[in-house]
Amino acid sequence: MGVLVVGSVALDSVKTPFGEAPDALGGSASYFSVAARHFAPVAMVAVVGEDFPQHHIDFFRARDIDTSGLEVAPGRTFRWSGEYGHDFNTRRTLDTQLNVFAAFQPRLSAQHRRARHVFLANIHPELQAAVLDQVERPDLVVLDTMNFWIQGSREALVDTLGRVDIVLLNDEEVRMLTGEAHLVRAARRVMEMGPPMVIIKKGEHGALLLTREFAFSAPAYPIEEIHDPTGAGDTFAGGFLGYLASRPDWREEAEIRRAAIYGTVLASFTVEAFSLDRLAAATPEEIQARFQELRRMVTF
Amino acid sequence: MGVLVVGSVALDSVKTPFGEAPDALGGSASYFSVAARHFAPVAMVAVVGEDFPQHHIDFFRARDIDTSGLEVAPGRTFRWSGEYGHDFNTRRTLDTQLNVFAAFQPRLSAQHRRARHVFLANIHPELQAAVLDQVERPDLVVLDTMNFWIQGSREALVDTLGRVDIVLLNDEEVRMLTGEAHLVRAARRVMEMGPPMVIIKKGEHGALLLTREFAFSAPAYPIEEIHDPTGAGDTFAGGFLGYLASRPDWREEAEIRRAAIYGTVLASFTVEAFSLDRLAAATPEEIQARFQELRRMVTF
Repeated sequence: MGVLVVGSVALDSVKTPFGEAPDALGGSASYFSVAARHFAPVAMVAVVGEDFPQHHIDFFRARDIDTSGLEVAPGRTFRWSGEYGHDFNTRRTLDTQLNVFAAFQPRLSAQHRRARHVFLANIHPELQAAVLDQVERPDLVVLDTMNFWIQGSREALVDTLGRVDIVLLNDEEVRMLTGEAHLVRAARRVMEMGPPMVIIKKGEHGALLLTREFAFSAPAYPIEEIHDPTGAGDTFAGGFLGYLASRPDWREEAEIRRAAIYGTVLASFTVEAFSLDRLAAATPEEIQARFQELRRMVTF
Repeated sequence: MGVLVVGSVALDSVKTPFGEAPDALGGSASYFSVAARHFAPVAMVAVVGEDFPQHHIDFFRARDIDTSGLEVAPGRTFRWSGEYGHDFNTRRTLDTQLNVFAAFQPRLSAQHRRARHVFLANIHPELQAAVLDQVERPDLVVLDTMNFWIQGSREALVDTLGRVDIVLLNDEEVRMLTGEAHLVRAARRVMEMGPPMVIIKKGEHGALLLTREFAFSAPAYPIEEIHDPTGAGDTFAGGFLGYLASRPDWREEAEIRRAAIYGTVLASFTVEAFSLDRLAAATPEEIQARFQELRRMVTF
């Protein structure tokens, strides 16, 4: 099997200067799965409520995403609503209704326990650890988190960090986690907590990938019209991990660099439309074209 | 002759979490000249007061920088003092004493009027235009500015922009100038004002160079210890324009890309110490080593 993602499937209501999309498909596992599926088989473990539209499940299945781990629980689906301002750099959460997600306890099937590539999306670090307890022999574990857990569940998060290969953080989060303003030094501090690789997501400034052996700077794709940045980070993770899962040896430095570029490319589609609309429509040719465009952008 | 820079030579008092440097050599023309001199002959046009230490002038001359345009006027030298916080992203100006700089009226010698490569450092846009009026046949004009002129002398600035080849702005300035939050679109708006090339300086996130024909993303050099970011932008400009002035055809896209990397490299030295201490000490071997290191950082 390919990549296992444990995270959220949600109904998002997003308002931007370009309009609004009420109750659209969202959630970390959704963005991740659709992005990763461009490269490798994907299985999602998440929970939705009885109100979750069947056509979204059909959408995943039509893309050959394994939804056998998508539990339908009594109650309503996790809902998030937020608003972006003119510059898209600040996001205001208007409402969060955890609903069935509040009691989410990931239970992996026998097949999912054999996953080799695992993405622990942004959920409670104790749940992330509980997932790892169930995976028998993971070869690559990538973890995402957020300011909420860094502040509120720091100890559990640091424990879980000791068990993963790669951690994804945005610049604000890496500073919050380490108390270190300087990004390169902050990344080194995170490595001391366990993960040998840190990826700092910098939004419109691209991403910085750091290990003890090398540093890689991925530029942002120069999009003219950002419509909705929701899900960009999870899409990056999906492109990154999906690509690595498709390679014979993900530890090859050249593969890791390419993976970060594929993550960047897929995220560039996500932000061009609401929900997963543009990401899902991206063709292999378009993905390759942007990959080459990014190469031209950095070549000297 | 090589590059002509018109700007400030100042005595800066800078305080950072690493210490303070009182009355140290500073000013846009100082940083620019020392950076550009790594690649090409440089002449500076600026003004200092009678209190300006002779050893600073000797310092420029020892580096073979043409100081014949450095006027010594009755009065005190331009002084700036500022403080950087823990994260170096915010700068607080504690005091600005324009002194002799307040009445600065650049007058170019017959030789300086023949300059082919001109850097208009951050001074009043009307003075920048007055410099251009005196230069006979410039081949490459690069302009820097700041929020103060964008807000207070917008019309004059836009006029002057119509006469330059390349404008340097930081991300805040490009947004302020255009009212456009999105960097790529903001750059396009600036191009509509005249300059066919816009370089957006993003500090720790590198620089983005945009023309109608291509986009180039220069990563930041991954410095572990920033000591004082003062002068980084002018140093970037010096490395960039100095390198281009040393080439047979600065319009070659490959040269422009390399120039942006040399600007990045030289700025990386500037921020490692107070004043021009580290920049002046950088050797050709160190410059080349960081150039290659940046290439490794972006290659995929």
